[in-house]
Amino acid sequence: MKVLVVFAHPEQRSLNGSLRDVAVRELEAQGHDVLVSDLYAQGWTSAVDRADFPSLPADARLAPAAASKQAFEAGTLTPDVKGEIEKLLWADVLILQFPLWWFSMPAILKGWVDRVFAYGFAYGVGEHSDKRWGDRYGEGKLAGKRAMLLVTAGGWQEHYSARGINGPIDDLLFPIHHGILYYPGYAVLPPFVVYKADKLDEAGFEAAAERLRERMRTLATASPIPYRRQNGGDYLIPSMQLHAGLEPPEARGFAIHLARAEASISVAASGTKARCG
Amino acid sequence: MKVLVVFAHPEQRSLNGSLRDVAVRELEAQGHDVLVSDLYAQGWTSAVDRADFPSLPADARLAPAAASKQAFEAGTLTPDVKGEIEKLLWADVLILQFPLWWFSMPAILKGWVDRVFAYGFAYGVGEHSDKRWGDRYGEGKLAGKRAMLLVTAGGWQEHYSARGINGPIDDLLFPIHHGILYYPGYAVLPPFVVYKADKLDEAGFEAAAERLRERMRTLATASPIPYRRQNGGDYLIPSMQLHAGLEPPEARGFAIHLARAEASISVAASGTKARCG
Repeated sequence: MKVLVVFAHPEQRSLNGSLRDVAVRELEAQGHDVLVSDLYAQGWTSAVDRADFPSLPADARLAPAAASKQAFEAGTLTPDVKGEIEKLLWADVLILQFPLWWFSMPAILKGWVDRVFAYGFAYGVGEHSDKRWGDRYGEGKLAGKRAMLLVTAGGWQEHYSARGINGPIDDLLFPIHHGILYYPGYAVLPPFVVYKADKLDEAGFEAAAERLRERMRTLATASPIPYRRQNGGDYLIPSMQLHAGLEPPEARGFAIHLARAEASISVAASGTKARCG
Repeated sequence: MKVLVVFAHPEQRSLNGSLRDVAVRELEAQGHDVLVSDLYAQGWTSAVDRADFPSLPADARLAPAAASKQAFEAGTLTPDVKGEIEKLLWADVLILQFPLWWFSMPAILKGWVDRVFAYGFAYGVGEHSDKRWGDRYGEGKLAGKRAMLLVTAGGWQEHYSARGINGPIDDLLFPIHHGILYYPGYAVLPPFVVYKADKLDEAGFEAAAERLRERMRTLATASPIPYRRQNGGDYLIPSMQLHAGLEPPEARGFAIHLARAEASISVAASGTKARCG
């Protein structure tokens, strides 16, 4: 397979740098082709602004979505953005690797999403009408590919558990998993998360590295998070609300968008296991 | 009062620009002092990197949290970051204004958080031990101040409702509300959200503007989102898990961290109203 790792840490000599090397070595040992977009090393530009749309007249009002659509269609996106789009089309698997900063991705990676996920490429794809709300959430130009997050967090695993004060990690990552990766079509694999990242000793690192190697060996076979397809009949169109009664009675919030409860997804916050098929 | 608006849109002649002007005019008409940090106009740097820590030796490994702590304590953060910290200390109310891009804030605003919310200022504050996990989630250097989000979204309100495919807006914003604003001590007001932002006509804009003026008139009096205080007895320390049985039986996921269910927070996804005190 072809694997793209988008790496967003400013220091090569970091836990993230070491984990990236472990992942890349294991993937290459398995015979996969690997490309790394090292955003800091590439000097990636984070902010969407007029410079993204060189064909926009100097006195024209900048409407980012409209400008993105126009530039994607006309082929006038900037070379750095076009390069990343080419890599995404090339790769069978996308891995986004980052330290969790303020419960989300670092700005440089958010800027990669904001700039590379162009209108007509990652959104605004397919028919938009009262009958069909585009090709998204399971369909789109990146359908048939897989994606996963490789994340380090300073806090404890308990703090990110179903009852932990930070909120459940699956809920914190939902805007990325569902809103950024599933949206343009990726099948999203459960995340690989290392907790207490600042306190990892040699043995802890080795344990994490082995766990990561195993995940790299099962990229093609692991079951994706079972998000519901927008156009699979589960949602009313155009209100895009989930039909009543589809979810387990215990499910609330983001968890109702899972086609079935999986062990890796915390639908039950109070310690009870969701009963469903 | 003193109000800081952090504005993150690349175009002045945008819906966001117009809403900002409405908000600022209303606040000034009420006699408040208003400052705007216009991140694009300021040429704000988004990515945390070595340039943030000029006193870090050239050959030293960059560990962002440790470097942030050292620089904050030594007073060697960069002038742009120090300037924003001064504004945060000055302001009684913080408003973050942005278009919702990929279900979160634009990279430039995330970069404002990543860089300005320094260790020792916004995190790593107070005693960290097995008995007390720092001053955060309701305590911290920004306690006693209020914050709110002013957000525009392209999608429909239904798509962001309890059963909407994007996920409930309160859950999508939780990582910002709870993880970024409540964390260093802000009382977080319910967000002001404009939906179908790309399709707003003159009448729609006027309605939104009037709603916004009303929100600006009630900044000091509106009830904040009732997140639970970390050190108020609701959480086990150091596992930071919510004590069993505190939340309404229907609550799951992020909603268990609310001290009581409010009309503005969707704890129930299936249309039933949460019954609780």
